[in-house]
Amino acid sequence: MDDLAPALTRILDGRWGEVRRRLREHEDPMRFAPPPERLSMEEHRAFTTAQLLSLTGEDFASAGLATGMGGSADFGASVTAFEMLGHGDLSLLVKAGVQFGLFGGAIANLGTERHHTAYLPGMVDGSLLGCFAMTETGHGSNVQHLETTATHDLGTDEIVVRSPTPGSQKNYIGNAARDGRMAAVFAQLVSADGEGHGVHCVLVPIRDGQGHPMPGVTIGDNGAKGGLPGVDNGTLEFDEVRVPRANLLGRYGDIDAGGTYSSPIDDASRRFFTMLGTLVRGRISVAGGAGAATRSALTLATRYALHRRQFAAPGDGEEELTLMSYRAHQRKLLPAIARSYALMLAQNDLVEMMHEVAGHEGGAPEEHQRELEARAAGIKAVATRHATDTIQMCREACGGAGYMASNRLTDLKADTDVFTTFEGDNTVLLQLVAKGLLTEFQETFEDNSPRAMIAFASRFTASSILERTPAAGLISRLMARAPSTDDDDAERHRGRQLSLFLDREKHLLEGVALRLAKAARAEPTDAFRIFNNAQDHLLAAAEAHIDRVLLEAMCAAVETCEEGPVAELLDDVTDLFALSTIERHRAWYLEHGRLTPTASKRVIRGVGVLCKDLAPHARLLVDAFAIPDAWLGAPGLLEPLGSA
Amino acid sequence: MDDLAPALTRILDGRWGEVRRRLREHEDPMRFAPPPERLSMEEHRAFTTAQLLSLTGEDFASAGLATGMGGSADFGASVTAFEMLGHGDLSLLVKAGVQFGLFGGAIANLGTERHHTAYLPGMVDGSLLGCFAMTETGHGSNVQHLETTATHDLGTDEIVVRSPTPGSQKNYIGNAARDGRMAAVFAQLVSADGEGHGVHCVLVPIRDGQGHPMPGVTIGDNGAKGGLPGVDNGTLEFDEVRVPRANLLGRYGDIDAGGTYSSPIDDASRRFFTMLGTLVRGRISVAGGAGAATRSALTLATRYALHRRQFAAPGDGEEELTLMSYRAHQRKLLPAIARSYALMLAQNDLVEMMHEVAGHEGGAPEEHQRELEARAAGIKAVATRHATDTIQMCREACGGAGYMASNRLTDLKADTDVFTTFEGDNTVLLQLVAKGLLTEFQETFEDNSPRAMIAFASRFTASSILERTPAAGLISRLMARAPSTDDDDAERHRGRQLSLFLDREKHLLEGVALRLAKAARAEPTDAFRIFNNAQDHLLAAAEAHIDRVLLEAMCAAVETCEEGPVAELLDDVTDLFALSTIERHRAWYLEHGRLTPTASKRVIRGVGVLCKDLAPHARLLVDAFAIPDAWLGAPGLLEPLGSA
Repeated sequence: MDDLAPALTRILDGRWGEVRRRLREHEDPMRFAPPPERLSMEEHRAFTTAQLLSLTGEDFASAGLATGMGGSADFGASVTAFEMLGHGDLSLLVKAGVQFGLFGGAIANLGTERHHTAYLPGMVDGSLLGCFAMTETGHGSNVQHLETTATHDLGTDEIVVRSPTPGSQKNYIGNAARDGRMAAVFAQLVSADGEGHGVHCVLVPIRDGQGHPMPGVTIGDNGAKGGLPGVDNGTLEFDEVRVPRANLLGRYGDIDAGGTYSSPIDDASRRFFTMLGTLVRGRISVAGGAGAATRSALTLATRYALHRRQFAAPGDGEEELTLMSYRAHQRKLLPAIARSYALMLAQNDLVEMMHEVAGHEGGAPEEHQRELEARAAGIKAVATRHATDTIQMCREACGGAGYMASNRLTDLKADTDVFTTFEGDNTVLLQLVAKGLLTEFQETFEDNSPRAMIAFASRFTASSILERTPAAGLISRLMARAPSTDDDDAERHRGRQLSLFLDREKHLLEGVALRLAKAARAEPTDAFRIFNNAQDHLLAAAEAHIDRVLLEAMCAAVETCEEGPVAELLDDVTDLFALSTIERHRAWYLEHGRLTPTASKRVIRGVGVLCKDLAPHARLLVDAFAIPDAWLGAPGLLEPLGSA
Repeated sequence: MDDLAPALTRILDGRWGEVRRRLREHEDPMRFAPPPERLSMEEHRAFTTAQLLSLTGEDFASAGLATGMGGSADFGASVTAFEMLGHGDLSLLVKAGVQFGLFGGAIANLGTERHHTAYLPGMVDGSLLGCFAMTETGHGSNVQHLETTATHDLGTDEIVVRSPTPGSQKNYIGNAARDGRMAAVFAQLVSADGEGHGVHCVLVPIRDGQGHPMPGVTIGDNGAKGGLPGVDNGTLEFDEVRVPRANLLGRYGDIDAGGTYSSPIDDASRRFFTMLGTLVRGRISVAGGAGAATRSALTLATRYALHRRQFAAPGDGEEELTLMSYRAHQRKLLPAIARSYALMLAQNDLVEMMHEVAGHEGGAPEEHQRELEARAAGIKAVATRHATDTIQMCREACGGAGYMASNRLTDLKADTDVFTTFEGDNTVLLQLVAKGLLTEFQETFEDNSPRAMIAFASRFTASSILERTPAAGLISRLMARAPSTDDDDAERHRGRQLSLFLDREKHLLEGVALRLAKAARAEPTDAFRIFNNAQDHLLAAAEAHIDRVLLEAMCAAVETCEEGPVAELLDDVTDLFALSTIERHRAWYLEHGRLTPTASKRVIRGVGVLCKDLAPHARLLVDAFAIPDAWLGAPGLLEPLGSA
């Protein structure tokens, strides 16, 4: 069995496996690793900056740029490489994400040729470190209501950037406190005639060559955070800061020398969401990084559970049992491993989707772009939730050893903790997913406010849910083969599992649509009440959708395997993912007559049996993640005492 | 309504409310608070040590000692004061717990008069800082199998302490790395004739007056941890370290000058668990500290949710809604507040139980001692789980602001994180609870191994479950008044709630007893398999028991209120605790025919309605925790921007 890991790795590695292999075999494996000893925040920031600059020698950044911008347009490779950074120091992952993904992405996607020529080379080679100044103290999720203004002054032909209120301070901005020389500032654009055009992005120099703040720019330091000590988050305030009109990233909305505003997109809301949509890679990258960190944690906790012994079994003499022998421990680790498999495969699909859309350089069908955004939002929300829950569980599964910083689990937990709420708060993102499903990705150019949700729901039809999946043909075939529901082992059947997943999603969505349609017909004061009463269902519908996406990704992967032990193992892992997910939601299935009490108990038992059957292969399952020991660190968890 | 908070506070404060009030009004409110600025680990350790020494001026330690030992025997006051430290810097709470609770407790409870006279004054005034050296690298939960040895040398009349294997290194020991001068070392006691007498405790000087390690003692530093930076955890290894025979804490097992071992308790296992049982206050204190930290986090997140606004409601103009307006947010915070109420009340009951038992100075009926241990284990497991889950939720509920170290939530999370696995790993503790229930607290002098669990289960009868509760009379009366189960609002009825809780506990326990009895009759190899298949049920039974303890504590508190708004509010909070707990386990109720699908959906709806109804009182509910703003810190969360 032990030689199955490489075959599993090939499946999990996906289309850009070569990128992963190259990084695993990197001549300097510590290039991305956490500092060898505990550093102060200031030292860690310097360390992370040095790591970032050393990365500019690789092709992380340029692969993410179109050929016309001096890149190699290998978008999938770029995001996959970024995901691999998630096995190293998460501070570097986030710092690189800010520089190449957010700052670079804003210039590349929102700017025009003059911005590309002027700034992208410095962005790539690290000579121009930059910030992505979107979030304000008063507005995070509700980006459309940012308060910073960027007003065109016709007299000097400059843009004047202002922070008019305490709440309009830019906050939590990576690269701001120490390194950034320029910021891509999101602000309400106002033309000289006083008309507002909604949120646009302006490049604002924030530090001069000596590192001093530019006139009118006040830079604050967020100081210590719950994690990510190497990232210099800070605040930015603008007191009448003037930049040339050319600094407006004008691809989706520009002002000419005469002060006239023009945009290729008439509708302001649609324009805003188109601009935001081009930045989708950030969410995809966060999901990827979260997945990598989770797999690191699972590898550490699983290897510990396989050598750590405590308490003897009856009649077996004094030899103590490994932690992995215990049902409670198996039930913690193995379903989490199965879900990590599902997420890794679904992430690969997502990266392919992104690669295709990005390949069109803005010319992809709008529906594909909207689908990509919804999928990215959902996978990000689910992957980061899984990361926080799983890394926490892994820490606890390693007891006192898990609490030692040298064993990495606590840093993995602390560093990824913010992932659930940055790059889109998960609750808001799940609403975005539900909205996409309700509107079939037509005309979703509205914000995530209750108002917009209600307005859209009335147009819902559930008819096309199935057709929309990439593996639709395969899935239909599998479902058609589902056994009778009172079969003794019905829930082990893939078709039955798929039906249960799909059924839950469909029923939840229909229920939400019905409720929101009622809200649309109601008085405004009632409308919010009805929306609010349905919010749980809305979020549950989104999660049910992503669960199905995950299961379908696993089904597709199993299907590609030739018959044999690898296929059998992956099939069991898929069963465990499916059954443990059904188990988690079994109350819903019981309430809605989809599972009988007997079948529900059978599901619980099935999860237990699968955990027991897979426990002997646990090492193989985490070895398939193929994380070099040098990156994992934590020798105290990896090997039994005295074995080194 | 706003003036109801003090009345609620009086109820929550419990019997030692005066201790809480005194500390809240302490002339130096920052005496227990975290350092005003971020410190390095070394600085934080020094800061915490200074705080600890300043505490010796209060009566934290002496209240916990019997009058015969120079204390005031106000055990409940001592533990309540300790709980209040949980609102401050958790490093101080743990450091004080090590010094006064664990090190001091070992001397007080396991030692005899000579030890009390020689060491307790220094323990109390801080001139003798000490360690509690129980856990080893190889053995944490399975304390009975510690490998350190303490062998009597008849020739010199000394005890020789040895660390025979790498795994026998004492690990994660608080006070070891920097401050401790003496350690209470748990070791296998061997008399000069070579006979082993099981684990006993020996006082071993580990540093001389200059702070250098004593000969033969190797001290290591655990360095950085996931939290608690002010606690100097370290390792201890003993290479033939000789101490006078008098250093054996001999209350439960002593060696005389002739080398003869004697003990008031013949059975070795019973002796071991009696010794361990005297240290129960540590677990109670951890549960209390976890509760305090959780209430701090809930206060911060609730106050933030009441002023932070995001997105406007339909038809309501541009004013955005508070986070607390949203169903999803209400559903995160309010059930957690309700559970915190239940836990605080149950903790008060537990402290009273402990106070009574401790008042007998070892002479309490054995059954009371066993009950106390099981209750402490259960409340500790449940309170620390609640702490980790709730503080994490609070962090996320505050978004980016929640991730800033200055807003405290991340430190509260990191510092309390280890609580789920130290002072008894929660999984092991819940097994202890289940064992106690299965054996009715008779003869529970066996370890928590599968072997012992199986041996005991065969003697189970469920008959006395009800009688054992403190509020049995009240509970029976309430249950008798339960309405018909198909009543439209049945689950809002207290009697029905109590029945559902009790029924779940009873059914789970009976099921486990049946399975383990089968294991007892099986071949040894089968026995472990049967035990292991039942382990989930065992843990669920223990949790169900503690849930019932919590609900009964709330019922009793409601009963003591005079009719009026306070009683009504507390009644609603109790409903929310009951319904949200039933909701969490509704799959079980459905599977076992205790709830119909209709009733189950009614429970979900009921939780939503209670959340909505209580949301306007959220501020009052957390104000009742009565945590001074100076302790809470985090002005960014407490008040709206610009309101200060």
